[in-house]
Amino acid sequence: MAISLIILAAGQGTRMNSDLPKVLHRVAGAPLVAHAMRAGAALAPERTVVVAGHGAEAVTTTVAAIDPEATVVVQEEQLGTAHAVAQALPALAGAAGDAVVLYGDTPFIRPETLAAMAEARARHAVVVLGFQAADPGRYGRLVAEGDVLQRIVEFKDATDEERAITLCNSGVLCADSKVLSELIEQVGNANASGEYYLTDVVELARARGLSAGVVICDEAETMGVNTRAQLAEAEAAFQARARVEALDNGVTLTAPETVFFALDTVIGRDAVVGPNVIFGPGVTVESGAEIKGFCHLEGCHISRGADVGPFARLRPGAELAEDVHVGNFVEIKNAVLDEGVKVGHLTYLGDAHIGEHSNIGAGTITCNYDGVFKHRTEIGARAFIGSDTMLVAPVTVGAGAMTATGAVVTADVPEGAMAVARAKQVNKPGFATRFFARLRARKAEQNKDKS
Amino acid sequence: MAISLIILAAGQGTRMNSDLPKVLHRVAGAPLVAHAMRAGAALAPERTVVVAGHGAEAVTTTVAAIDPEATVVVQEEQLGTAHAVAQALPALAGAAGDAVVLYGDTPFIRPETLAAMAEARARHAVVVLGFQAADPGRYGRLVAEGDVLQRIVEFKDATDEERAITLCNSGVLCADSKVLSELIEQVGNANASGEYYLTDVVELARARGLSAGVVICDEAETMGVNTRAQLAEAEAAFQARARVEALDNGVTLTAPETVFFALDTVIGRDAVVGPNVIFGPGVTVESGAEIKGFCHLEGCHISRGADVGPFARLRPGAELAEDVHVGNFVEIKNAVLDEGVKVGHLTYLGDAHIGEHSNIGAGTITCNYDGVFKHRTEIGARAFIGSDTMLVAPVTVGAGAMTATGAVVTADVPEGAMAVARAKQVNKPGFATRFFARLRARKAEQNKDKS
Amino acid sequence: MAISLIILAAGQGTRMNSDLPKVLHRVAGAPLVAHAMRAGAALAPERTVVVAGHGAEAVTTTVAAIDPEATVVVQEEQLGTAHAVAQALPALAGAAGDAVVLYGDTPFIRPETLAAMAEARARHAVVVLGFQAADPGRYGRLVAEGDVLQRIVEFKDATDEERAITLCNSGVLCADSKVLSELIEQVGNANASGEYYLTDVVELARARGLSAGVVICDEAETMGVNTRAQLAEAEAAFQARARVEALDNGVTLTAPETVFFALDTVIGRDAVVGPNVIFGPGVTVESGAEIKGFCHLEGCHISRGADVGPFARLRPGAELAEDVHVGNFVEIKNAVLDEGVKVGHLTYLGDAHIGEHSNIGAGTITCNYDGVFKHRTEIGARAFIGSDTMLVAPVTVGAGAMTATGAVVTADVPEGAMAVARAKQVNKPGFATRFFARLRARKAEQNKDKS
Repeated sequence: MAISLIILAAGQGTRMNSDLPKVLHRVAGAPLVAHAMRAGAALAPERTVVVAGHGAEAVTTTVAAIDPEATVVVQEEQLGTAHAVAQALPALAGAAGDAVVLYGDTPFIRPETLAAMAEARARHAVVVLGFQAADPGRYGRLVAEGDVLQRIVEFKDATDEERAITLCNSGVLCADSKVLSELIEQVGNANASGEYYLTDVVELARARGLSAGVVICDEAETMGVNTRAQLAEAEAAFQARARVEALDNGVTLTAPETVFFALDTVIGRDAVVGPNVIFGPGVTVESGAEIKGFCHLEGCHISRGADVGPFARLRPGAELAEDVHVGNFVEIKNAVLDEGVKVGHLTYLGDAHIGEHSNIGAGTITCNYDGVFKHRTEIGARAFIGSDTMLVAPVTVGAGAMTATGAVVTADVPEGAMAVARAKQVNKPGFATRFFARLRARKAEQNKDKS
Repeated sequence: MAISLIILAAGQGTRMNSDLPKVLHRVAGAPLVAHAMRAGAALAPERTVVVAGHGAEAVTTTVAAIDPEATVVVQEEQLGTAHAVAQALPALAGAAGDAVVLYGDTPFIRPETLAAMAEARARHAVVVLGFQAADPGRYGRLVAEGDVLQRIVEFKDATDEERAITLCNSGVLCADSKVLSELIEQVGNANASGEYYLTDVVELARARGLSAGVVICDEAETMGVNTRAQLAEAEAAFQARARVEALDNGVTLTAPETVFFALDTVIGRDAVVGPNVIFGPGVTVESGAEIKGFCHLEGCHISRGADVGPFARLRPGAELAEDVHVGNFVEIKNAVLDEGVKVGHLTYLGDAHIGEHSNIGAGTITCNYDGVFKHRTEIGARAFIGSDTMLVAPVTVGAGAMTATGAVVTADVPEGAMAVARAKQVNKPGFATRFFARLRARKAEQNKDKS
Repeated sequence: MAISLIILAAGQGTRMNSDLPKVLHRVAGAPLVAHAMRAGAALAPERTVVVAGHGAEAVTTTVAAIDPEATVVVQEEQLGTAHAVAQALPALAGAAGDAVVLYGDTPFIRPETLAAMAEARARHAVVVLGFQAADPGRYGRLVAEGDVLQRIVEFKDATDEERAITLCNSGVLCADSKVLSELIEQVGNANASGEYYLTDVVELARARGLSAGVVICDEAETMGVNTRAQLAEAEAAFQARARVEALDNGVTLTAPETVFFALDTVIGRDAVVGPNVIFGPGVTVESGAEIKGFCHLEGCHISRGADVGPFARLRPGAELAEDVHVGNFVEIKNAVLDEGVKVGHLTYLGDAHIGEHSNIGAGTITCNYDGVFKHRTEIGARAFIGSDTMLVAPVTVGAGAMTATGAVVTADVPEGAMAVARAKQVNKPGFATRFFARLRARKAEQNKDKS
């Protein structure tokens, strides 16, 4: 059945104490709203409508970057969840099938849960997602018999008996788009806070003789983010799951609690990850690769047999083929390193292609930026780049060529040739002895002056 | 009312298993005694007297560095807490007002708690700080009615009924200086350990018809440090509080448990701090700055919109203006970077000033040390420092000037000029092919010899 | 009494989900089998026999590297623990004294526990190692009276009464070699899984009228590794103990939970270790040395008064004498640094010897590799190596000599001399202004073309 997603992302998030709209704060390297969109995407929705409000411009930009086909509508005033959904409805006009309402600050709803809700729609006109709360506190309670939902009771309106219920309302809801539109229209704001509540649609549906149902998910899925502390807790919850998953997949994590994954990290079986490794977005690591301690990786691919670190930084576009070695204090950006390339120490490779089995000496730098433009460096196979070589791009070093230590390479180096660019060494006998004697004498003089 | 502080800091700390006097061990980057002095400083004391003993010389040096006006007196023999206070009294001779006794190994007493004690002095001649112990163990018990302290009972002298009391003695005490002097004089050492106990002043005061009171603080405030494990626990307790405080202030900490603050770290709202960041003393970070993972910061200022790391080290005197970018494997010391400066990779800037919007190429080094003296580097606005530039200080690069890749700059570069210092590149055709053929042949020869 | 060790290391470790044999997975930097061998080595065994199976070749190589005198026998089919022990018996043929059976996937049995088992052999023909299980689950139960073991009951065969027993079987066992051989021969496989169980020897011994005894160890010692998660738990358990031990020995660990030790790390009293330090195998740190945050150390020695980091990497063969300073983004490998040497920033020293009180400038690199061979660099005492010096090995810099900034040093530098190798600086007036004007114009042109 066709699905439309409505993601509510208008809240200010006052308790975040931030200029950034709440749903743009990040967990696992991705904005909260991206998590909600990703969960919903598993339903293969025909339309996605994000309801923005506070910081709508920034939210719009972010949403467009994640899914250019998503529609953003702006809720100018925040008059409640039903009002927010009402803003989305025009964008669904004429849409057949179901609408699913998700929340931009609730990142962990699982695709399986949404699938179960969609499935429950076969039996109920409106399906609400509930959870058994360890500490129900002031959550709304779901009064249900089996999977039939009788009503949602706000905590403040609940009797003692109702308060004893531990099945609580997550706010996530699924209904036929057309039915939802009609119900939303009927929601009023004659309550203490003067807001239009989405939860009212359950009662309105039942008043029409429609059936409401409940699907129950794990409480952890319904974790919302309202403060920086909760943001950190959400991050921790994500990481805890991602670490278990990696271990289950046959990855060795020496110290799982010190490894940070992104939403989309992929790591193969028998990869080894040392302590203190940060995976930013877009990293894939093949089976049997090794990431040593203190690495910072983003947007890169590390092939089988490659080893990286410690103290390595791979930035977007770093592609390491099999058996590549990247050592310490090395940065690689937008560069392809073919099989067996070795880059051991203190090097920056940016906008480059390095042919197989080339050896890049310590202190090598691709000078890829001239102050305005970026340029590329091409190095052939089995080249030997001497220590402290400056590769002034655009420049090509041929296969099997070498550069002498300290060379500033501005012109292409032919295959098998050596590029030298170095002043001749001159030893000045006794110079150092006299030089330091003079400096120390001056220092002694100064110290005398002070005393 | 005038306040005098007496800080007891003479203990050996045998269980620390250390040559360093106990109160000089550090928590949050500061010696324990500095924490006690800082807490007491909130009372704006007229005099501060630190009672040193073991390692008195080192303690004196440290105390003088923290507060040059503080007096250090030496307790030659450790004969008990009353004896320690007695050593401090001559230094208070003639001081009007109250004396507050704190402990150099008890870092977490809050200013609010000391203020409450000062306030309670309106009702009592002697005020003792107590706490409700979760596990009272062998602590001395406070027998009190309301805020009236009747007596302090040492655990070993306590009846079963008294041992059931959970209100315990922290040792912190406040009294009129003159009264305290008189009471201290009366304290005897006719007890099992032959020591003079400060706690005895309560009984002596009441024997004189003076009132004793109790102020109750959180047990966490009274945490003392006697072992390395307790030192680590104190550090953890400090960090836990500092992390919560940062989150509450609207700072994003991706992984709070991996961020280490100093006593005086200041971080603005909407700053973002990645995993694994260490703040040494003297760091301020403005709103909206970003500190990426794996950074080590001390004595530096990071302005709004600046981003730092990963793998950056800022040392004392690093001042980053707005929108400065400091990338990986970069060290900055005693250097001012004006607005929009970019220092992306593998660079050391020390004793320097970089004008706004200048770009510092990878591998740049300010050669600030000649073996005896340190010298300064000045770079004007919108300069372009080529990769691997050596700035041999003292040296000035003018505004809008550039240096060529690999230049060793020993003379000033005028505005708008380019400094070049580079040998011409020569390509030697076929050299590399012959060179490696020769080396490999030699290797093969060696391997044959071995077999 | 002569002892023979039998270490069972043949299991596939299916739940590890790995191509690597289970016993080669690492905890604290050492393969699991090395932990078992190390524990057993405390008994000073005359023979050590490791029973390999899955991945026998790799296990053989690893065992030989740990103890060249150990024998590896291969169990071609895995037919049970008694069958595994049977494979080892021929290698013990004629061995007098006791045989102790350990497990390659059980790394934490303490030497004291094995000593207690050896001692209990005075009273019993067969001694089994048991533990009081917090959650006995499906472990085999030990039915014992005092230290007399009556029988071992598999969980599935146990009565309710037996299941209530919490004393469980670790599998570790000690017996006279000759007796064990005879008993093993009698073990049958007439059971549900058709395997030969080592535990059967207890019943067989008692049937012969021999006495069986039990020694009880801490449950933590019997922790086995069957999954990556358990591997991570074993690592965590090792680290937790190692951290407590370091603190007890008078080491300051600012944040113990972020420091990772190896099996053989040795750290002296009053050493200070900051947050996020990784010790690989073979590190010794003397009293009073300081390791700052973010260091990665392996196979190195750090002497009294030396300080290292942050962001330093010491690799095997790095020897730092007293008061050496190693700063940030510095890598040292196979190099001896004499007293007082300073290496502050962005440096690679490999295959080198640096004389006392020499100063190594930022950006210095020992170019130790010519593509085929490695060569050594020798630097005398009190030398001053200018920033960005390339030391093209083999090369010697004499005592008191200096190298100029940016020098590529290919020839030896005599004592007290200065080596210069630098092109003269030329300033081209107005060049930068014209250069950037041209680039920006081109950029503007391009942008116009795009629009």
